[in-house]
Amino acid sequence: MAGAGEQDRLHLQAAVDLAARNVADGGGPFGALVVLDGAVVATGQNRVTRDVDPTAHAEVQAIRAACRELGMFSLAGATLYSSCEPCPMCLASALWARVDRVLFAADRHDAARGGFDDLAFYDLFATDRALWSVRVEQHRDAGSAAPFDAWLAAAGTVAY
Amino acid sequence: MAGAGEQDRLHLQAAVDLAARNVADGGGPFGALVVLDGAVVATGQNRVTRDVDPTAHAEVQAIRAACRELGMFSLAGATLYSSCEPCPMCLASALWARVDRVLFAADRHDAARGGFDDLAFYDLFATDRALWSVRVEQHRDAGSAAPFDAWLAAAGTVAY
Repeated sequence: MAGAGEQDRLHLQAAVDLAARNVADGGGPFGALVVLDGAVVATGQNRVTRDVDPTAHAEVQAIRAACRELGMFSLAGATLYSSCEPCPMCLASALWARVDRVLFAADRHDAARGGFDDLAFYDLFATDRALWSVRVEQHRDAGSAAPFDAWLAAAGTVAY
Repeated sequence: MAGAGEQDRLHLQAAVDLAARNVADGGGPFGALVVLDGAVVATGQNRVTRDVDPTAHAEVQAIRAACRELGMFSLAGATLYSSCEPCPMCLASALWARVDRVLFAADRHDAARGGFDDLAFYDLFATDRALWSVRVEQHRDAGSAAPFDAWLAAAGTVAY
């Protein structure tokens, strides 16, 4: 297990290096890698401001690139290494991608020191939505579930 | 406010229609719209299986498309309409995109009936990570916060 730990340490350091290089390039201080069977499948850096895409966090970038590389929407068996604790968006992305493990170096408190809302959003997720300043509301009517009825009735749908 | 309610109803129905059409096209039963100042800026449909991208949920697709359309990484003032309650990834995407409101029709329980893990992932988020089957761990060392030090020392960084 000392070897596994050393591999983890090296991959995490690579994620931190990606984060530091991204700052030097004018991006946010976040980097990530997807590793499968000991090999780096893809890397990601935060591209929010450069790509004008609020979802372009390092982990999402790495997951999307790894799936493109492998031609699969599942990263089962893979480990996501991130320079910083994944925010709720990125952690849920990792769950949808079915990775086996998520390892991170810095955490939401470091991100907060940098002015980022990871900690604030984790706190929101732990709070009743009725108390959020962002209004999140359900407006259900008789047709709301129709797409799921169609889905369940369809033949050959692909689960994910 | 009757007019606002009617607009909400129409936009939500459009999201549900996008979801139903996506099923007919072989995709997942999810659709979304971003609306700003009464105008539809962008739409999205679930593209996970067709794009082999586990992050290509309808809401993420709509948010990314809206930001591309507007040339901005902020959707402040906008409303995200979704055929189904956004999963944790999509809800956090909406927070990062700074939308004002999120309205949805069906919810995590409908999604569970369709075989999707939205409910399961919400439940995971409310559970101690030590109990998750996916291992999520911090490995911190002396260099872990270095990217944030570099970020705070850098001039001209762009907050988001």
